[in-house]
Amino acid sequence: MTDEPLQVLVPDLMGVFVFGLSGGLAGVRARLDLFGVTVLAGITALGGGVVRDLLLGLTPPFALRHWPYVAVAFVAGLVAFLMHAQVQRLRRAYLVLDAAGLGLFTVTATKLGLQQGLGLVGACTVGVITGIGGGVIRDVLIREIPIVLRSEIYALAALIGAVTVYACYRLHVLQAPEQIAAATLVFVVRLIALRRGWQAPVAR
Amino acid sequence: MTDEPLQVLVPDLMGVFVFGLSGGLAGVRARLDLFGVTVLAGITALGGGVVRDLLLGLTPPFALRHWPYVAVAFVAGLVAFLMHAQVQRLRRAYLVLDAAGLGLFTVTATKLGLQQGLGLVGACTVGVITGIGGGVIRDVLIREIPIVLRSEIYALAALIGAVTVYACYRLHVLQAPEQIAAATLVFVVRLIALRRGWQAPVAR
Amino acid sequence: MTDEPLQVLVPDLMGVFVFGLSGGLAGVRARLDLFGVTVLAGITALGGGVVRDLLLGLTPPFALRHWPYVAVAFVAGLVAFLMHAQVQRLRRAYLVLDAAGLGLFTVTATKLGLQQGLGLVGACTVGVITGIGGGVIRDVLIREIPIVLRSEIYALAALIGAVTVYACYRLHVLQAPEQIAAATLVFVVRLIALRRGWQAPVAR
Repeated sequence: MTDEPLQVLVPDLMGVFVFGLSGGLAGVRARLDLFGVTVLAGITALGGGVVRDLLLGLTPPFALRHWPYVAVAFVAGLVAFLMHAQVQRLRRAYLVLDAAGLGLFTVTATKLGLQQGLGLVGACTVGVITGIGGGVIRDVLIREIPIVLRSEIYALAALIGAVTVYACYRLHVLQAPEQIAAATLVFVVRLIALRRGWQAPVAR
Repeated sequence: MTDEPLQVLVPDLMGVFVFGLSGGLAGVRARLDLFGVTVLAGITALGGGVVRDLLLGLTPPFALRHWPYVAVAFVAGLVAFLMHAQVQRLRRAYLVLDAAGLGLFTVTATKLGLQQGLGLVGACTVGVITGIGGGVIRDVLIREIPIVLRSEIYALAALIGAVTVYACYRLHVLQAPEQIAAATLVFVVRLIALRRGWQAPVAR
Repeated sequence: MTDEPLQVLVPDLMGVFVFGLSGGLAGVRARLDLFGVTVLAGITALGGGVVRDLLLGLTPPFALRHWPYVAVAFVAGLVAFLMHAQVQRLRRAYLVLDAAGLGLFTVTATKLGLQQGLGLVGACTVGVITGIGGGVIRDVLIREIPIVLRSEIYALAALIGAVTVYACYRLHVLQAPEQIAAATLVFVVRLIALRRGWQAPVAR
């Protein structure tokens, strides 16, 4: 462990865990074996953050310089493999976890982008890419069209959170509570959209 | 906006726009909703250039440091969503736009690679990767086998343009007209191959 | 050619060749044409190493700074296209070549990660990502669920090799013979798993 601030590590690791669970459950649903489930959990959990660090030029990525990232992703995969029997409504748990990861990663990545000197559009784009990245990779690997491209409000929820982080940053009030609030906002918007079946218009 | 030369920004943004349209039309054809179409347009439009900048170590990528990139990609997605009714021959428009993006991105990326000190093979490889990159990502996300792997001359058209850029650069005559000519060459070769149904041999 | 040590270049190029063959054979099986086969061979052969260099911040990647990488990948694609008729058991040859590439890339990438200052978990993760990376990209492009997620021991074989490299490095005995031994270990574990049909447990 080096000197990365805990404000980055703690929400990052929470995001790693929930995205790892979502990847693991996706692997169970796709009937992968124990190793496949663990690998998919790892790629899903670490993919978004690795892409973020590559975009910002922070190499090697945090996830490779701090062993808890890989350990947490691995544990999440094992938990997903073991818990699937208890989880009655796999699809619901999967979507809730995915929404939590979306919020956590979007907020930490947007903040990191601002700290690296990016403006509104650049930082929010990094935030959204990081938030959706792990899920996109997960869905591509099991040959589903990524959630972010399918019918429900998804990227928009991330964008709302990213803009909130930007506003707080510019107002000099971006502390832990504001970040938690922004991540929760993404999570709630996404869950309401799921529950109400909000859909954007389709062409034709 | 910082001090990037307009010679990079203008052709880059034209490439972003045409690839954004191609991604948006692909999204409409895949029956995605408004947000899905816009996100797919954005990923297609920005993907090739982001990969180029990561390969060349130019981080954060241009597309994150200059807001017009994201804005142009977003507008292209909206235009694709709205224009689909007017466009009678969606597939033809889609292939023509894709060919234009292939030419523009290949040429700017090859030049940038040469300016960063790469040799013939390295610069041309960066050029071809950048040219085909956005389309590959687009096709993977909607679960099609990428155009570049399917039957028509595609990567070869990009390669011809990249080698042309290399030759002009070495002869110290790589100005705007030569770049336009090289991009047009890629575009024309690709369109002729499409029109004539040129095919490379298939095994067996 | 610059001053990269031959210890990196030689095993890297061997990995490029065998992964290029595997990508080319996958392209032949997917009924791609000559150009599609060559492009798929190139992406498969160079993908893992490029991802490794991006993760380690070594840009532009080796593969773009040394022309033999692209040349070897290209030749591998041509050989795969031409040899398919002679190769009776295409699927077996394909899996053996893939196993060889897995071993070679895992070992060189783990060592490079250690040399760049990563610890046990980080270096082994880079090693495994590099080993599995080319095959994952290859399988995604031809719309198969990646080998690493399907039933046989695969990532585990790479992990065993990466940990072996780590141990030798810490014991200051990581010379050419130890690296060859580690790559062979990955290869043999993977082949035995294939032959015996070793499977990890599947949920439910």
